[in-house]
Amino acid sequence: MPRNQQILLDSRPQGQAQASHFKRVCSDTPALQEGQVLVRHHYLSLDPYMRGRMNDSKSYAACQPLGQVMMGGTVGEVAESRHPDYQVGDPVVGMGGWQEWSVVDAGQPGLLRKVDTSQVPLSYYLGAVGMPGVTAWYGLTQIINPQPGQTLVISAATGAVGSAFVALAKARGCRVVGIAGGPEKCHYATQELGYDACLDHRQHPDLKSMAQALKTACPQGIDGYFENVGGHLLDAVLLRANAFARVALCGMIAGYDGQPLPLHNPALILINRMRVEGFIVSEHLQLWPQALRELGALVAAGQLRPRESIAQGLAAAPEAFLGMLHGQNFGKQLVKLI
Amino acid sequence: MPRNQQILLDSRPQGQAQASHFKRVCSDTPALQEGQVLVRHHYLSLDPYMRGRMNDSKSYAACQPLGQVMMGGTVGEVAESRHPDYQVGDPVVGMGGWQEWSVVDAGQPGLLRKVDTSQVPLSYYLGAVGMPGVTAWYGLTQIINPQPGQTLVISAATGAVGSAFVALAKARGCRVVGIAGGPEKCHYATQELGYDACLDHRQHPDLKSMAQALKTACPQGIDGYFENVGGHLLDAVLLRANAFARVALCGMIAGYDGQPLPLHNPALILINRMRVEGFIVSEHLQLWPQALRELGALVAAGQLRPRESIAQGLAAAPEAFLGMLHGQNFGKQLVKLI
Repeated sequence: MPRNQQILLDSRPQGQAQASHFKRVCSDTPALQEGQVLVRHHYLSLDPYMRGRMNDSKSYAACQPLGQVMMGGTVGEVAESRHPDYQVGDPVVGMGGWQEWSVVDAGQPGLLRKVDTSQVPLSYYLGAVGMPGVTAWYGLTQIINPQPGQTLVISAATGAVGSAFVALAKARGCRVVGIAGGPEKCHYATQELGYDACLDHRQHPDLKSMAQALKTACPQGIDGYFENVGGHLLDAVLLRANAFARVALCGMIAGYDGQPLPLHNPALILINRMRVEGFIVSEHLQLWPQALRELGALVAAGQLRPRESIAQGLAAAPEAFLGMLHGQNFGKQLVKLI
Repeated sequence: MPRNQQILLDSRPQGQAQASHFKRVCSDTPALQEGQVLVRHHYLSLDPYMRGRMNDSKSYAACQPLGQVMMGGTVGEVAESRHPDYQVGDPVVGMGGWQEWSVVDAGQPGLLRKVDTSQVPLSYYLGAVGMPGVTAWYGLTQIINPQPGQTLVISAATGAVGSAFVALAKARGCRVVGIAGGPEKCHYATQELGYDACLDHRQHPDLKSMAQALKTACPQGIDGYFENVGGHLLDAVLLRANAFARVALCGMIAGYDGQPLPLHNPALILINRMRVEGFIVSEHLQLWPQALRELGALVAAGQLRPRESIAQGLAAAPEAFLGMLHGQNFGKQLVKLI
């Protein structure tokens, strides 16, 4: 029975989340029952949605129970199996949580999935070919649904969702403009990820400046916006939106820690006859296979090779998570556990 | 050549619109050219969208040129015809504007339409079986798209759009809750129009009070909202919205006169996975015949018999229009011109 380090949610943040809200413990993994599989986690995924789950209030994700292992996506390999479909060594993706090992009822649908690592790196199943990639795919294809030649904008442009979004959107013939924090990320966005332009929101910290920057970067206006951040970015996009523009609301990380951030002029949604739609990708599981096929093909073809930010060891997870919430990661934020 | 009283837009409001922004003039109607028809207007329609057109800025309706006859819907009868499809005495609906007579190129599609007054009063073609009715139909069927048993809310509940909306929504088996200004309108809403409940926004002038009132009136939450007003009403609805609720943004009359009214917590659109969509009914002409058929049938069956507010004489139009913007009308606001 391997010893299993785990991280629990110890208390709920009032305002900004901090490392003290988490607690690291150690326990033995239980013996396997018939139908169960023991997975050794190689990587843990850190995602912005987890911040919402830390609150007790109604959030866009279900609430994380206090005193329990933080939920989260993991990739790893089967270390022991009492299920006929899984062999020791199989690479798998699942929701193992913030811990080094997990015991999974492998027969229960949706908990564990074997993956092919011949053309796609294992860690990518937590990013480009995982939940973040499908998130980008859903917002792009099911809400924004662009025509070739249209101009799309996305905030948090160099994150796991953004890097998949630009690859999917360029494949559809769109002009894609990113918004990211700092010159390094903007350089990475245009030089590696394929953005046509990238705006540094630190250089444009107010509505007027950001709206002007968008006007320059989007001379034909904005037809679609994928929102991960909220605040003055959404206000600025509405000012530059074309008639019938669509906004896929995926995250509003700018407001996670404090008071709600207002939308200053919602009448623009009417004036521009826009559609603004919120979604959670886990509610659209029927579309995942189609999305994952396209994302896997883009990776295999070399058109989607985003960088990853990798923290080392489970104990580093809380700080890596908090850093990601403040934009300190560079691409998909992972924790390497072996 | 009859003398034709007309009302022009004389200047643009900075802030609140006033009677002094309009100017009444008199001219001769020109002689008819081949293919033209002279229409004597019986009723002029006054609608909130006209306020938006008075501004020079980008609005949700095209700009009304200065020094020209105010645009607007009219019903009347053909007084003289040089077009083979129109006979003297034919009842017609068109966009004749704020004047007593108009000369129309009857062959040009969309400018003039003969109507049947055997089962539908002529004036209704400006309301329940006209643009406001189709507006209600579009928002209900194309955006909100409710299931039987769902709870819908509409602001400006007793106006021309609201009265059509409740008839259409009740026919689809929904619970329909109105928001209106004052006890008389609320009484009319529930006793005559068929609303299941009606909230007086004057009794609930702030977010907290309105949200509480909506909670009581909508014990199952809100599945669809038709927005004519904006401001704290929209904020309150978002607080009570169910997952996957839809908001049809048709008007935001609360903000027409001044600074934009913010939306206080747009993150609720994400949290509730909502769709918020603005529209202008004139951009969906292909759906009008279907909508008008249903609305005409409801009127003929006695299920849609809304009251009208009728001002007398063209000179009364500006004050009637300004009163409507402040909710002084009771149902569809018309000006009787004969």
